[in-house]
Amino acid sequence: MRKEDRNIYISNVDLDEAINMYFSKLKFDSINFEEIDVYNSLDRVTVDPIFAKKSSPHYNSAAMDGIAVLSDSTMGASEVKPKTLELNKDFIYVNTGNVIDENYNAVIMIEDVMEMEDNKVQIISPAYPWQHIRPIGEDIVYGEMIIPSNHKIRPMDIGALICGGISKLKAIKSPIVSIIPTGNEIIENIDDIEKGKILDSNSRVFENLVIKYGGIPNRYSPQEDNYESLKNTIDNASKNSDLVVVNAGTSAGSKDYIVKVIREIGEVVVHGIALKPGKPTILGIVNNTPVLGIPGYPVSAYIVFEEIAKRLILKLNGLEKEEEEVYEAVLSKRLVSSLKHKEIVRVNLGYVGDKLVATPLTRGAGVTMSLVKADGLIEIPRNTEGIEAGNKVSVKLLKSMNHIKNSLVSIGSHDIVMDIIANKMNLSSGHVGSMGGIMAIKRGEAHIAPIHLLDTNTGEYNISYIQKYFKDEKMILIKGVKRLQGFIVQKGNPKNIKGFNDLSRKDVCYINRQRGAGTRLLLDYNLNKLDINSDDVIGYEREMNTHMAVAVTVKSESADTGLGVLSVAKAMDLDFIPVCYESYDFLVRESSLNDEKIKGFIQVLKSIEFKNEVQKLGGYGFDNIGKIIYI
Amino acid sequence: MRKEDRNIYISNVDLDEAINMYFSKLKFDSINFEEIDVYNSLDRVTVDPIFAKKSSPHYNSAAMDGIAVLSDSTMGASEVKPKTLELNKDFIYVNTGNVIDENYNAVIMIEDVMEMEDNKVQIISPAYPWQHIRPIGEDIVYGEMIIPSNHKIRPMDIGALICGGISKLKAIKSPIVSIIPTGNEIIENIDDIEKGKILDSNSRVFENLVIKYGGIPNRYSPQEDNYESLKNTIDNASKNSDLVVVNAGTSAGSKDYIVKVIREIGEVVVHGIALKPGKPTILGIVNNTPVLGIPGYPVSAYIVFEEIAKRLILKLNGLEKEEEEVYEAVLSKRLVSSLKHKEIVRVNLGYVGDKLVATPLTRGAGVTMSLVKADGLIEIPRNTEGIEAGNKVSVKLLKSMNHIKNSLVSIGSHDIVMDIIANKMNLSSGHVGSMGGIMAIKRGEAHIAPIHLLDTNTGEYNISYIQKYFKDEKMILIKGVKRLQGFIVQKGNPKNIKGFNDLSRKDVCYINRQRGAGTRLLLDYNLNKLDINSDDVIGYEREMNTHMAVAVTVKSESADTGLGVLSVAKAMDLDFIPVCYESYDFLVRESSLNDEKIKGFIQVLKSIEFKNEVQKLGGYGFDNIGKIIYI
Repeated sequence: MRKEDRNIYISNVDLDEAINMYFSKLKFDSINFEEIDVYNSLDRVTVDPIFAKKSSPHYNSAAMDGIAVLSDSTMGASEVKPKTLELNKDFIYVNTGNVIDENYNAVIMIEDVMEMEDNKVQIISPAYPWQHIRPIGEDIVYGEMIIPSNHKIRPMDIGALICGGISKLKAIKSPIVSIIPTGNEIIENIDDIEKGKILDSNSRVFENLVIKYGGIPNRYSPQEDNYESLKNTIDNASKNSDLVVVNAGTSAGSKDYIVKVIREIGEVVVHGIALKPGKPTILGIVNNTPVLGIPGYPVSAYIVFEEIAKRLILKLNGLEKEEEEVYEAVLSKRLVSSLKHKEIVRVNLGYVGDKLVATPLTRGAGVTMSLVKADGLIEIPRNTEGIEAGNKVSVKLLKSMNHIKNSLVSIGSHDIVMDIIANKMNLSSGHVGSMGGIMAIKRGEAHIAPIHLLDTNTGEYNISYIQKYFKDEKMILIKGVKRLQGFIVQKGNPKNIKGFNDLSRKDVCYINRQRGAGTRLLLDYNLNKLDINSDDVIGYEREMNTHMAVAVTVKSESADTGLGVLSVAKAMDLDFIPVCYESYDFLVRESSLNDEKIKGFIQVLKSIEFKNEVQKLGGYGFDNIGKIIYI
Repeated sequence: MRKEDRNIYISNVDLDEAINMYFSKLKFDSINFEEIDVYNSLDRVTVDPIFAKKSSPHYNSAAMDGIAVLSDSTMGASEVKPKTLELNKDFIYVNTGNVIDENYNAVIMIEDVMEMEDNKVQIISPAYPWQHIRPIGEDIVYGEMIIPSNHKIRPMDIGALICGGISKLKAIKSPIVSIIPTGNEIIENIDDIEKGKILDSNSRVFENLVIKYGGIPNRYSPQEDNYESLKNTIDNASKNSDLVVVNAGTSAGSKDYIVKVIREIGEVVVHGIALKPGKPTILGIVNNTPVLGIPGYPVSAYIVFEEIAKRLILKLNGLEKEEEEVYEAVLSKRLVSSLKHKEIVRVNLGYVGDKLVATPLTRGAGVTMSLVKADGLIEIPRNTEGIEAGNKVSVKLLKSMNHIKNSLVSIGSHDIVMDIIANKMNLSSGHVGSMGGIMAIKRGEAHIAPIHLLDTNTGEYNISYIQKYFKDEKMILIKGVKRLQGFIVQKGNPKNIKGFNDLSRKDVCYINRQRGAGTRLLLDYNLNKLDINSDDVIGYEREMNTHMAVAVTVKSESADTGLGVLSVAKAMDLDFIPVCYESYDFLVRESSLNDEKIKGFIQVLKSIEFKNEVQKLGGYGFDNIGKIIYI
């Protein structure tokens, strides 16, 4: 794994330019097609325009229930001079859809007919010729184009095709997409999981994206990093599919064979795109088949698939990529980016007032959950250094605008109760600690901020902070839960940790929370009281963003202890040394009180279901929950 | 089929009220679920929130290719004082994803490492603790909620679930929807088609809508209008499915048994909704299963399915109906509606300038093609008499906004060449005759208007009309095709029609075009010249909207002749008596000349492919095609 084995130099081609270069080298003109049944044509794409083989209706038919008459025989009928008609001589009864033959040329609605004895009826107004008759071809005329070529067939199209006498049609063969996950560390079965092994998830995401975009996925088991066997696999796959997607090993590592393999058996059109995440992408061609090398980090993999593979699948299926709908949002935080690449950033979105606010999520390429949680994606173009807070940005949505409009945006401290609430209402939550929450409300980026900030002078929670940061503004604190904070320690407390004094011991490794977290304030306050220098706390500089992350670090024995809540220690089957109860409350602007989302939130807090679920976690109190305090 | 057998009285309940009444009677609380494989969970809906069973990463791992070190051993390194580290003593090589065990606590990127002899490396800056290490749980923390309940699973969710150690999950069982087409006239096989028989298309549309909305369709063959057998069928279906959709026979005809059947074996909650099209709808319950009676006309069927069945399917699948995105458009024509019902109107949409213009299509409930062609739907609320032209309306899209933005809106006269163009570019065309086209351009509703208007004074086409209707405006005429007009007659010309004089014969039945059609002007001009009174032309008052419709009427022998173009006569295998060549040109505002869509249109007109295809039709000339005439 020495440096000399690595191919660390890859290019930095503009995304659009790379796609143009690639697409111009690929041959899309010999599209394969097959004859399919119109009944099974949903979402398939037409090769040719389809012209009606029959008119619809294919005979003159009654458009109403009533009687069929000859217009001439009704002339002169009026309320003062009704006309009498005789069954089978002057008229016949018809139902909607019945044939109107050459003996009749109009239909009178049954509601306008007075029935009499002796098979006679009376009418009080004349019928004009062709009234209430659907003439041949009223809907579809023989020879008319029903749908054009390269058209993706919808349910309503199937209806029209059937009415137009079409039973079979020529459709583009759905492209077969081979998906080849690679890497010695990648495993297929969850039961084989161990340290150093990673469960293959990307190929499963790809598989389902292929289905969504109209292709047929052909997923391989994870392949070893072995040059010769990778070569055979890619060579074979390229012969048996319309597109090959190879995942991971596309970069500059010593076992990154993909680019060399493609170069040997085909052509590398581009290696390295000015895109973040997603730079180490390979656009290759083997046996005239596009072979795409997509980097292994899940977010990079998703972005590159969406930017390039999606377009290829659509193109192979006769469709152009539709421009996605973009919305204008206000960026809530400054985003710094490099001049070198276009960067795609995951954001949460929320309507705070009438402003659509985009709040960037983590930019880590490995953080799958950020894609799950993201409401949208924004682009920072190449050759810009970033975007300032307050600037307008264009967002592509990952969730529906409807969902976003109904989302309560919560930014602040994290607690498991937020997950419980998120399952009961539409909640978009960002975990940036209590102070981060206060700032988000200040900037108008969030509806609520969960906070637990200890006033070290009064021992009270939250209120003095709100008074300090919102001097002339009308704010509200919705009372939340009381929660028990303490030291999360390994089972049996092997280091015998009893209190803050133990954190300065040389054999104790602490795991800290990020700056601005209420739990961090709690630590600093106590260290200060005990005159302990933070430099003497081993691990003080290592920061986690949530209680859960602290507990996991302790669980994995990469730290001895960290501060957190009881519920988390219990969830991870760890021991817990109580420190104090604190108030975990929700900061809201008074003007938001009429917002239906806030009302719904308070309703959830006050509900018995919520209390029951939280109670099961342990370490929570509910005094005054949902109470509104005007500040 | 007497009146007394008919149940002509149905109610007129408000749509929302009807749905509320219905849904409150249905029991949605006992949702069925099943355990499914995470790998096959795309588009399935969760029953419970899903919490991670594993953290991801599940071990501390290298985030970069490079060397793993102990942070302490790197302290003090600088460009002037590089530090030398020894393999397997001070460092090991790692690739992205490798385990970082307790011996190391930082990773240095390979790019920042100088490799030397004797398995040694030099570094020129210190590594801070945990740099380039992905700690356990960085992505997903054990116990964290990955997705909530009632969540429709997306590809990216599958990735996160796998990373979170989930292999199986509880999903709502996809609802089984039985679809029962009824009617003695309804047939299943295209080969059985004959006068009075209609091919079943609605159940095929329903089948595919069910698939789209996440249900499992169970389509029956068309059922006869037989009370006892319908009763058995509906009773059985209701026992074996989550929703039953019965199509047609829901109204007031003598064989409309559905409502009586439901009343006998279950409950009719609503019969008759204040909705157009779609009034004769039945909301019933049989064996605790919703049984929906949907009217038979294809457009009514589609609208009622979308308004009610869709919502039921989603609800049975644990999902709420999302509010559809609505766009604001300007209505191009006055729409009159009744106070009695909410009406849903199909419209074409186009951006003319920066104005999104909605042009109503036919309102016939039987016109499937209008659904295929429609770009969107607008609602005229109940208790309004209609909407004035120029007013703003909210539109729900049936095609993508992207498609609509790129559509060239053509309103005017129809010719088969428009179908050929529509297959070569994105064309939204309305056929209202030449004068209708001039008015559409006048009102700013169309980009182009195909016209063929004969000036009876000069014998010239089009130009004088444009000068008259656009006095102070800069207009352009794009020269189109010369086309041969004549009498379309039955094979062998049995009535021996030679010219306009024959139209006044008592044994000749004519089929006319609508007012404002150029072909109608041609007729009137010639009748006038010959002093023939239009009252003496049998069939003068019967109007068709296209050449094709005229030809079909002649073909079906419901008229002897009509004026039309040669290509249409040929397409229908009819005979043709030539009358004259006319100019079929395109009216455009001069300001539109820079529009890419107009440029593309002219390119198509001038292309060899277009000429070749039109030539095959016969009866067309191409002098000056695509030439721009400033008026």
